[in-house]
Amino acid sequence: MEKLTIVKVGGKIVEEEASLKQLLKDFSSISGNKILVHGGGRSATAMAAKLGVETKMIEGRRITDQEMLNVVTMVYGGLVNKTIVAGLQGNGCNAVGFTGADMDIIRSIKRPVKDIDYGFVGDVIDVNIKELSIMMDQGISPVMAPLTHDGKGQLLNTNADTIASELAAALTERYKVHLIYCFEKDGVLSNPNDDNSVIYELDTELYKQYKTDGTIGDGMIPKLENAFRALNNNVVEVLITNAANLTRPAAKGTVVKL
Amino acid sequence: MEKLTIVKVGGKIVEEEASLKQLLKDFSSISGNKILVHGGGRSATAMAAKLGVETKMIEGRRITDQEMLNVVTMVYGGLVNKTIVAGLQGNGCNAVGFTGADMDIIRSIKRPVKDIDYGFVGDVIDVNIKELSIMMDQGISPVMAPLTHDGKGQLLNTNADTIASELAAALTERYKVHLIYCFEKDGVLSNPNDDNSVIYELDTELYKQYKTDGTIGDGMIPKLENAFRALNNNVVEVLITNAANLTRPAAKGTVVKL
Repeated sequence: MEKLTIVKVGGKIVEEEASLKQLLKDFSSISGNKILVHGGGRSATAMAAKLGVETKMIEGRRITDQEMLNVVTMVYGGLVNKTIVAGLQGNGCNAVGFTGADMDIIRSIKRPVKDIDYGFVGDVIDVNIKELSIMMDQGISPVMAPLTHDGKGQLLNTNADTIASELAAALTERYKVHLIYCFEKDGVLSNPNDDNSVIYELDTELYKQYKTDGTIGDGMIPKLENAFRALNNNVVEVLITNAANLTRPAAKGTVVKL
Repeated sequence: MEKLTIVKVGGKIVEEEASLKQLLKDFSSISGNKILVHGGGRSATAMAAKLGVETKMIEGRRITDQEMLNVVTMVYGGLVNKTIVAGLQGNGCNAVGFTGADMDIIRSIKRPVKDIDYGFVGDVIDVNIKELSIMMDQGISPVMAPLTHDGKGQLLNTNADTIASELAAALTERYKVHLIYCFEKDGVLSNPNDDNSVIYELDTELYKQYKTDGTIGDGMIPKLENAFRALNNNVVEVLITNAANLTRPAAKGTVVKL
């Protein structure tokens, strides 16, 4: 099986010109099959504000009404995705931008309303790797925006970390998948106020302990749940690290292990 | 050679819910290879206004400064394109949305400044049909937004009629291409105030005459120039008709001929 590197980059990195420029360069230099998954939440919030659309978050999750869905479709699917694609082309990387609706790559269902109505938010139910694989066989690198669809015509907003882990898990059928969550920190920190407190290795046992004693905070938990789900689905390696470490093989970060 | 139908739909049709819904249904029912090219100018203008970005037009052409480029990237590449893709999926048509930057499909150069500085507007210099053909061999229907790129990282705004004719011309290498320009009228009219004054057949000779005597007005000239360019590049048929006629083989419209 061939190797496939899936890089998920947080919004902050793709939304600032200097870090985006560096990321495009670094991602382009990764050899072999590769997929970039991006966020864009900060840009969406800023655009919503400009349009007078109120951003409502509950426990860090965006409530997506029709107006907000239009905003994220514009920002994630259009502005952020196409800016990245054109930028990668400029770096000699033959990229193609997709949402989950394109070629029916990621199908989801609108999250059922229990205590909270998240609106047009999709929980992934199916990932279709056929056409993605054909693209990669042609040397093309997919760039995924965090949008999915329900197959009945409805676009849905889906967390980018989840998109990355779902893609990673599904693609293990054809590739040896390495999943890298990049953000502006060097890894998972044991002390959020100390950038040098990187946890270099985090296994299920230690994760449970850190979650219980509060060492690992709320913001990091969904990302780690996604990381463990990927590992439980045959992903070879999950690394959480600084985007600046992307092209430094010896660079440190948090290696997540079962 | 297989047949390929390229349908270009004007903004008005994709921007109104009822006509969009009908279009998605009709386009989905076209058998064989097909590509949909869309505009979105009215939505871009409306979004720009909401964002306080001024729309400047010279002779019907949009001046695209950096702010307007962001708006059209969001609206064409995101909102309109992905709404169409999800809608086609809902109609059983496996669609994929692209701009010219994706897979380097359409490369352009920023229009040189002569009398007018159009800003980030691209004139097409190269169309790459390889990956588009691979997609269509898989039964997938591309949906093209009117954006291109310069290969150096810059997105550019490009007229949708031009995108349609350039794609049509390039794809004659592999397909028998039929190009249909759809809009809200039944065809090219000899009297703009009389919807029944459709010119059913328009050849080069008649076009010259109608252009000279003013029968064919300014708005229709760029579309017709694109139509004739397509025919001069081996496109089998160019039809200008009402979107409502898309699935009626016997429906009338303007057949453009050399």
